[in-house]
Parts: sequence; structure tokens; C-alpha cells
Amino acid sequence: MSQSVGIRPQVTGDLYAEVQTFYATQMRRVDSLDIEGFAATFTEDGEIVHAGGRRQSGRAEMLAGMRAALPRYKDIATRHWFGHLLIEADPADEDTVRVSYYTLVTQTDREGKVSFQPTFTVDDVLVRRDGVLLTRSRVITQDGPDTRAAAA
Amino acid sequence: MSQSVGIRPQVTGDLYAEVQTFYATQMRRVDSLDIEGFAATFTEDGEIVHAGGRRQSGRAEMLAGMRAALPRYKDIATRHWFGHLLIEADPADEDTVRVSYYTLVTQTDREGKVSFQPTFTVDDVLVRRDGVLLTRSRVITQDGPDTRAAAA
Amino acid sequence: MSQSVGIRPQVTGDLYAEVQTFYATQMRRVDSLDIEGFAATFTEDGEIVHAGGRRQSGRAEMLAGMRAALPRYKDIATRHWFGHLLIEADPADEDTVRVSYYTLVTQTDREGKVSFQPTFTVDDVLVRRDGVLLTRSRVITQDGPDTRAAAA
Repeated sequence: MSQSVGIRPQVTGDLYAEVQTFYATQMRRVDSLDIEGFAATFTEDGEIVHAGGRRQSGRAEMLAGMRAALPRYKDIATRHWFGHLLIEADPADEDTVRVSYYTLVTQTDREGKVSFQPTFTVDDVLVRRDGVLLTRSRVITQDGPDTRAAAA
Repeated sequence: MSQSVGIRPQVTGDLYAEVQTFYATQMRRVDSLDIEGFAATFTEDGEIVHAGGRRQSGRAEMLAGMRAALPRYKDIATRHWFGHLLIEADPADEDTVRVSYYTLVTQTDREGKVSFQPTFTVDDVLVRRDGVLLTRSRVITQDGPDTRAAAA
Repeated sequence: MSQSVGIRPQVTGDLYAEVQTFYATQMRRVDSLDIEGFAATFTEDGEIVHAGGRRQSGRAEMLAGMRAALPRYKDIATRHWFGHLLIEADPADEDTVRVSYYTLVTQTDREGKVSFQPTFTVDDVLVRRDGVLLTRSRVITQDGPDTRAAAA
């Protein structure tokens, strides 16, 4: 019964720390609206599929999208919180790492009031280039009720 | 004065990553209402003591309890967030690991509105069987005001 | 373009686990209002600069401040949640570690209702003394809107 818990090859502590540190850097950039710095954490041809299905391909398209959205953030501080990372190094290519994680997004206004976006689950493919992790693809899915409950 | 901070034997990075990965798997199962998969992350005789004192012993009893609760989740997506894991390998048995952690539980409804359950602290005993971690016991405690404040 | 993501020397899994375990211990103490135990996780001359600019220098001053604040906590359970730790061991002194992290603070009242303080970013300097980490300095900054949005 406990088969699949252990099938995933063990993640080393070093890889776990490397991936967490990569996201700590990437999220500081997006949360501080350093959009050029954020785009630079993706490969040149990196891709994001947003929760609604909108796709951004390449750094230039990401930058344009983020630049257009900047005014929305003029009165709020956004912070992305991650949970429950599942990290899998590609057995055929140690420089490719698949990561899945939960995200909770807080927005604090000028009065200090915190509000929340819906929660999301994110699936990334990271690649290591010259010793540095970069995001090659990201698929963001908004969490919704599971059909197993409706069927019960 | 700093005695007890260091008494705990140092957790290795590998064990830290192993335990975090175990919970990432276990929580994905409970949050996606994969109740059979969730039960399979416990030992056959695994036990949960819930915050109100209710005790579930063994996978069969857990499954029955979760199956009865499924309809409550038909309009919400639940996510468990963990914080501040304290991990202690049993010095006498390296396949027994005690873990304590904070949990925050979000529930997102169909409109994307997030609500929160009270926070909890959880104390687990994990055992490694054939290289795979399983939960043998779990005690869930709802966080309440500390008596030290009332005494001040 | 991806220069600075990788400049930071790689954090080992062991150091990552050691630092996380240190905070798990320190936060359990402050959240359980064990103010003496909390103060003992700082060096004797440890310093905290709070978000408003107030500075507490040394354990005695921290203790006095926390003791005065205790009555505020008599009806709530506070929990500190951390995110996105960036850990840098000092290359010139392996017993000095700089850590930056996000914090989210929940307060649960006697009815189980959760409220949130504004989010903060914290910059710590930790030192290892006789094998034990202690906080030597902490600077807490409340997250505010970034000027890049206003300029857009």
C-alpha cells in the first residue's frame, strides 16, 4: 500500500537547499518588482503558463507583461509563500530538476492590512546552466475543489 | 543560558530533505482527497489523535472517518502549510524519527476566497520501513493562549 | 543576465537544516512566551531593531521589553511563519552566518479566529558558539509597496 511514497529517488540535502535558495532569490525579485532580475532567473526561452491559460514565452514577453502590470502594485506589498516542495532530479540529466510546490500570495496594503489571493500549485522545470539554476518552464494551476468530494 | 538550543543532535541535510519530501507527498494526498493514498502513508496500525481528543487507530478507521467527511469538501480546496519542523532521529534506532511542526490550513472556495482554520502544532512519530517513511502516530494540538501571559 | 543568481556560494544541505532547526527552536520559544528561553537564543550582547526603529540591546533589555508586552498575549496564540530563507556563511569566518527571510505572523483567538499582522522581512546575523547558533543581530523591516510600481 505504501508503494509510491518511496518510488521517487531520494533528494539530497544539498539539492534541497540549492532549489530552496533559487526560489528565495527568484521570489525576492518578483516581490520587489525587480522584473528584469526576475526575468533573468528564467532561460532566454523560458515559458510561463498562468492559471487562466495565458502563456508567456521568452523573457521579452514576460517583461512586457510584468511592466504593464506594475501600476497595480503601487499601494501593496506582495509576498509569495511556498510550501511542500517535491523535487525530482531527472535521472537521465542531473542538470534538469522538476519541482512542484504550493503557493500562498499575501498582499499587504499601506495600512498593514493583509489580504490573500487564492492558493495555487506550481509545476516547474529548472535547468542548471554554468552551475546556476534557471526556470525553463512554469505551469501555475489555481487550486479548486476536488471531484472526489462531489462524487462522495 | 543557551544550553537547550544545542542539546538536540544536529539533523543532517539529507534527513531534513527526506522528511520534508515525505510531508509534501502526504499532504498532496490529503489535500487532493486521495484518502486511500493518504492512509497508505501511515503504518497499518498508525494512529491519529485529533485536536478535540478523538482518536483514530489503524488505516481502516482513518479511511472510514475521512470517507464520511468527504462531502464537506465539495466546494473548497484545502491546503496544509507547515512551518518550523523540529526533527529528531532516535539515537537508539535510526529508523524512528520524531517530528514536531506548525500547521496552517487554508480553504479556498469556488470564488477564490481564502479562509483559515485555527493554527495547530503537530507531533509525529515516523518510522522508516524498507527505506520509506510512514507515520506511526500523530498528535494534533490546537494552539491556544499561553498561560504565561495570563500570569503576567 | 543571470549573473547574480549564482554568485552566492552554495549553501550545503547540512547548514540549511541547521539554520532552519535553530529558527524552529527560537520561534517555539517566542510563540510559547518563554521569554527567558527566547532571550537565551541571542548572544549576551544581541540586538534587535524593530520595524518602527526601536532598538533593544542585550538580553536584559529584550527581557524587560517582552515582559512588559506579555499581557497583550493573554487571549491569543501567536505563530511566526518563515519563508524563503537566504543563507550565507561568511567566507572569512564559518561561524558567522547571515540569513534573510520573510515572516508572516498569525494570531488565533480563543474562538479559533485567525488574524494577520503585516508581513515583514528580517535580516539576521547568527554566530556559532560551542557548536550552537545564536542570533547576534536582527533587523526587522515591515514590507511596503515598492517605489518601482509608483514610478511605472
